Amino acid sequence: MDAAGFRRLWDQIAPIGRADSGGYLRFSWSEADLALRAWFDAQAAERGLRTETDRNGNRYAHWDPEPGAAADGRAVLTGSHFDSVPHGGAYDGPLGIVSALLAVDELRAAGFTPARPVVIGAFTEEEGGRFGVPCLGSRLMAGAIDPDRARALTDADGTTFAEAMRAAGADPDALGPDPDRLAATAAFVELHVEQGRALDAPVGVASAIWPHGRWRMDFTGAGDHAGTTRLPDRRDPMLTFAFAVLAARKEARLAGGLATVGRVEAVPNATNAIASRVTAWLDARAPDEAVLAAILAGFESKVCERAARDGTGFAIAPESATPIVEFDAALRDRLADLLGGAPVLPTGAGHDAGVLAAHVPTAMLFVRNPTGVSHAPGEAASDEDCAAGVDALAAVLRELAC
Amino acid sequence: MDAAGFRRLWDQIAPIGRADSGGYLRFSWSEADLALRAWFDAQAAERGLRTETDRNGNRYAHWDPEPGAAADGRAVLTGSHFDSVPHGGAYDGPLGIVSALLAVDELRAAGFTPARPVVIGAFTEEEGGRFGVPCLGSRLMAGAIDPDRARALTDADGTTFAEAMRAAGADPDALGPDPDRLAATAAFVELHVEQGRALDAPVGVASAIWPHGRWRMDFTGAGDHAGTTRLPDRRDPMLTFAFAVLAARKEARLAGGLATVGRVEAVPNATNAIASRVTAWLDARAPDEAVLAAILAGFESKVCERAARDGTGFAIAPESATPIVEFDAALRDRLADLLGGAPVLPTGAGHDAGVLAAHVPTAMLFVRNPTGVSHAPGEAASDEDCAAGVDALAAVLRELAC
Repeated sequence: MDAAGFRRLWDQIAPIGRADSGGYLRFSWSEADLALRAWFDAQAAERGLRTETDRNGNRYAHWDPEPGAAADGRAVLTGSHFDSVPHGGAYDGPLGIVSALLAVDELRAAGFTPARPVVIGAFTEEEGGRFGVPCLGSRLMAGAIDPDRARALTDADGTTFAEAMRAAGADPDALGPDPDRLAATAAFVELHVEQGRALDAPVGVASAIWPHGRWRMDFTGAGDHAGTTRLPDRRDPMLTFAFAVLAARKEARLAGGLATVGRVEAVPNATNAIASRVTAWLDARAPDEAVLAAILAGFESKVCERAARDGTGFAIAPESATPIVEFDAALRDRLADLLGGAPVLPTGAGHDAGVLAAHVPTAMLFVRNPTGVSHAPGEAASDEDCAAGVDALAAVLRELAC
Repeated sequence: MDAAGFRRLWDQIAPIGRADSGGYLRFSWSEADLALRAWFDAQAAERGLRTETDRNGNRYAHWDPEPGAAADGRAVLTGSHFDSVPHGGAYDGPLGIVSALLAVDELRAAGFTPARPVVIGAFTEEEGGRFGVPCLGSRLMAGAIDPDRARALTDADGTTFAEAMRAAGADPDALGPDPDRLAATAAFVELHVEQGRALDAPVGVASAIWPHGRWRMDFTGAGDHAGTTRLPDRRDPMLTFAFAVLAARKEARLAGGLATVGRVEAVPNATNAIASRVTAWLDARAPDEAVLAAILAGFESKVCERAARDGTGFAIAPESATPIVEFDAALRDRLADLLGGAPVLPTGAGHDAGVLAAHVPTAMLFVRNPTGVSHAPGEAASDEDCAAGVDALAAVLRELAC
């Protein structure tokens, strides 16, 4: 398809949830999310696609085959997610959904009729940007998280996932594994903007997702007056936290992985008070699990040592941990061939495709990102590359839906 | 007076603004602050004291002398503030106001009639806990802050000081210097809980307030995806911030002062995003101004160096800076003698007394704090010591209001 055709549909969602920063605030079940879901429904209706929401709040549009089609009835699932990290980029998630709608148009314009259902999915809370656990919709579907835990997850205002779902008219009591849906899916292909600078062609195919996880860290000490407490009398958790930020970076650098502290909350968070508690989150990833474990072990032991020196408490607990995902090798090679020898590359970013890959043959297509920036307003993809992504996804759906 | 008498009045305000932490949320112009002001008015009315609010939102109760009293008409001002830091202790501020009310009772019970007005003041926004600038009410009175700047100060929700004042029924257009009030004040004596472990008698007299200030620090970098951005490609302001926290402590330790980072805000503050910006506040204090300047200079140069290595931006700007305050030596010695040789000690904490000392002969009385904790729920003072504080304040008011 041409770049202008991509741009026309893309522009329809560009204003939804856009902040002054140029980034997006599209949290699950927020007004922006509901506007995007309504837009998705309208697009599906325009195309005569049947829509439904599954028990976990994931939304689908079905392009059903003609009655009596030859295949086994199992669907080809594509799509991605609408939700964003706070002030995230435009492409991360929505590109996969918009591209899927355009790929359907392209296949129809070419006279293609699928032999099996082609389903476009919009997954819930992929980023964990509101409730803290990424890929929540796909994890629930795959039985990878306890529904009670999911219902009780809270956002920054204390609203639970269950309450947010219910306020949006969905039923949180229904949350839970969906093995029938997984069994009825022949393959899942998620198209996504590339999130680093690793892809130097318009479109690539994913090989693997690095093992990764997030850990909550609690640094505890003694709140006190910043102007009157002698330094030797202090038990200041901000010091231990600061050490931990630098230690995480150092351990990751030495081991050849990634570690990031991007989120921190101090209590009481007052200029003239020594903090009584600092809570922060560690994001760590590595090419393999041994490296990730080495980073974590080195980090924990160094921070514990420092906490003992600072007289503070340090506790670290995983909030999510995802082992390495190697995408289906046969499918990966088939798609790379189909796309004329597209580059095959791994990613450090988690995706619903990474969760579903344990249950369904799964592949990912990446669209080039010229800035390499993601999870920030500078995230980018050219209209030309996005159009090439639509063409590639159409070719893949045609191949898999025969 | 006896401890039980102190406790009876003290218990009346104990529940107002108390949080689950055991600390207090008594921000200026909040519901809790207005409840405390209403309580103050009721106490004044019970004692037949005339109340007024000055142009800067500071509230007063006047014990006027008999007509034809001998003195020159200038008042003896006492009192303190009701507002707290977030989750601050019970005593910091309110102790000075409650003690003043009880001291009036004690003087009256002893048949004393003042020769000059005795005025109990409740100053606005002493902590800067809501609008960031400490001693705001006294600074405005003293002409030490531009009223336009004060009106425009915002709280965490973006509400301005002017809006908060207006919502509470006060007039922010009137803010400004109050030289007539200062000229009509013969002396100011603020009673306050001691905020360290420096006082080993029930009551002491202040010698000086250390020079101190708060600086806003902005660390800027490039927001990006925590899972896909190579370490060498990052410009992560959280690293520079972490270095700064440790550097501030080190510089203060080497120079013999205090430095604290207790407040931090990261943007976008997401677990899986490298921060694009971290804003934090430095609180620094020292026994003299040369030491404070040395701490700041060492700190700035080391953080600038680190920011260059991290590829981040670092900007630091003072939000308030208070030179050393030496309280009126004659008044200090007179009070220490009057109180039977009470200990004389400096403090690192700022107070309205520190601001007004430039304009009015000013003294402070400290009440012993057995935990040494302040700006946190663990702040303490025994009822016996508080009662001794009331006796001391009554003796001082009797001495000064003759």
